[in-house]
Amino acid sequence: MLIPMPALLFVGEANDRAAKTAHGIHYWRPNQCVGVLRLANGSAKLPLREMTISETAACGARSMIIGVANTGGFIPESWTATIIAALEAGLDVAAGLHDKLNDKPLLRETATRHGRRLFDVRHPDAASIKIATARKRSGKRLLTVGTDCSVGKMYTALAIEKELRHRGVAADFRATGQTGIFIAGSGICVDAVVSDFVAGAAEMLSPDNTPEHWDLVEGQGSLFHPAYAGVTLGLIHGSQPDALVVCHDATRKRIDDYEDYELPSIKEVIELSVLTARRTNPAARAVGIAVNTSKLSAHAATVYVAAVEKELGLPCTDPVRFGVASIVDRLLG
Amino acid sequence: MLIPMPALLFVGEANDRAAKTAHGIHYWRPNQCVGVLRLANGSAKLPLREMTISETAACGARSMIIGVANTGGFIPESWTATIIAALEAGLDVAAGLHDKLNDKPLLRETATRHGRRLFDVRHPDAASIKIATARKRSGKRLLTVGTDCSVGKMYTALAIEKELRHRGVAADFRATGQTGIFIAGSGICVDAVVSDFVAGAAEMLSPDNTPEHWDLVEGQGSLFHPAYAGVTLGLIHGSQPDALVVCHDATRKRIDDYEDYELPSIKEVIELSVLTARRTNPAARAVGIAVNTSKLSAHAATVYVAAVEKELGLPCTDPVRFGVASIVDRLLG
Repeated sequence: MLIPMPALLFVGEANDRAAKTAHGIHYWRPNQCVGVLRLANGSAKLPLREMTISETAACGARSMIIGVANTGGFIPESWTATIIAALEAGLDVAAGLHDKLNDKPLLRETATRHGRRLFDVRHPDAASIKIATARKRSGKRLLTVGTDCSVGKMYTALAIEKELRHRGVAADFRATGQTGIFIAGSGICVDAVVSDFVAGAAEMLSPDNTPEHWDLVEGQGSLFHPAYAGVTLGLIHGSQPDALVVCHDATRKRIDDYEDYELPSIKEVIELSVLTARRTNPAARAVGIAVNTSKLSAHAATVYVAAVEKELGLPCTDPVRFGVASIVDRLLG
Repeated sequence: MLIPMPALLFVGEANDRAAKTAHGIHYWRPNQCVGVLRLANGSAKLPLREMTISETAACGARSMIIGVANTGGFIPESWTATIIAALEAGLDVAAGLHDKLNDKPLLRETATRHGRRLFDVRHPDAASIKIATARKRSGKRLLTVGTDCSVGKMYTALAIEKELRHRGVAADFRATGQTGIFIAGSGICVDAVVSDFVAGAAEMLSPDNTPEHWDLVEGQGSLFHPAYAGVTLGLIHGSQPDALVVCHDATRKRIDDYEDYELPSIKEVIELSVLTARRTNPAARAVGIAVNTSKLSAHAATVYVAAVEKELGLPCTDPVRFGVASIVDRLLG
């Protein structure tokens, strides 16, 4: 799967929170976004030109991406006319929702008639994913892991890709979730893969490469997450990471949506991640800690990352506030 | 899903190895098996009366179970006539293969016409499985874990169920693989569940129960298996085991089919299993070790289990040779 770019971002009736997929795509790939299309009740604000379908062709758009993550992951009727218009205007259409574009007969017929494609990125092509071979691959890999979900694993992997490329090091972000897939243009939603195949999917995502090439694999979940840890462990084993970066939210105390569960310490996550990663790559090591400090003052954030760095002996940074140079120094050092 | 019993076991052209599902069902539920049906080239030998479809009704059979695990998990054309005859004779038909009975239009139409059901036990009803809540449940649970796949996790769980019931303790085996599901009459193939839902499936399998009731949950894979460890971790978290029994093959040195990977030690499996289990059940503890010593002499087996018992301070037994009384003593002690 390779979604043709550049793209028009469709945000429907979403607010900024629900349009987080569109925001992520725009933040990381601004040059791949020609504009935004909002429906009448939408409130999402993106710093992009608002555009109708008929205007997009002149701007070179090749696809329309549905940049919405709504509760339940459904495709409302109110979007149908816009999706059909996009197909008729020569755009492919991509979504990362639980509902599939390809399950809507009207959309499928319209796409076929116009020779266009519908991408449902949350739904991996099961037939193409194999059981992991666990064979050691060439090239290098970094995987982001975390104390919880939604602590910056995608952002950190992308920031490290950017920093490595800036330093002239060959590097590719490897997407494992819907927003990441839209940003990279390809990838596999590993949490939607049948459980026997998660490590195999991670192997497919980061194939053999040149010796000095880095894959930056987007992590998912947490080894300490009571619902999703299996996904994380399969991803760790299949990615065979040489390097691990632990992501954390400075002010979170409990697992999101699982109030009975304390957040693990960063140290616990380092220890268990390295232990399990060494099963498929004995050279695995932690190279840094990425903390979301957005709820702290600038001063408190500085104090926080310095304290973690001192306690754990690894570079610690907030990638948004301070960049990831210190982690990349350690990675290449 | 509840497969109506008793059943006729269909083994097609299988040899004894491929008919291991039928052997497992017969071993554990002899009273639920009315007979065996073999096709012309079959060589599987079961100590059951050979029977044609027309004879089964008089014996009270309510279903025909396809007791074969062939390579690729396909349903050959040569079985079609027998499956149709079974449906016409009033039997439901159940299979645990990768191919689905329900995907064969001729079989589906025949089943519908005769008001019969087709069970594909390897394919969980995705819509019914929820994300894990991680809420603490009432009742007690034991999970078998292992140094590898195929080291006796199902056998051990069933042997402990039998021993507990023999002692008057309420206990239920909870099946997580195809043979186990046929033996129990219900269950979920957790390795066929979408990865996000594995812990949720384990929760469904062992729901709230009376305080002294034991669920004996069939383990899958190994935390140290380079391809399947994610399934194991999801099962550990979702099962919330109070007790863990580690299963092992006394003569295996390498992970089956993964020659580059050394088998972990029993001690490593105990430590990582207890550590991860305590995330959702802080009371989790190891209560015993079950070893397959079938390739050792009786004397060597006795020496082996005594040595492991001494080294690790836990009851160690070969469930087939010596039973599981020592493990159950520890469990209830």
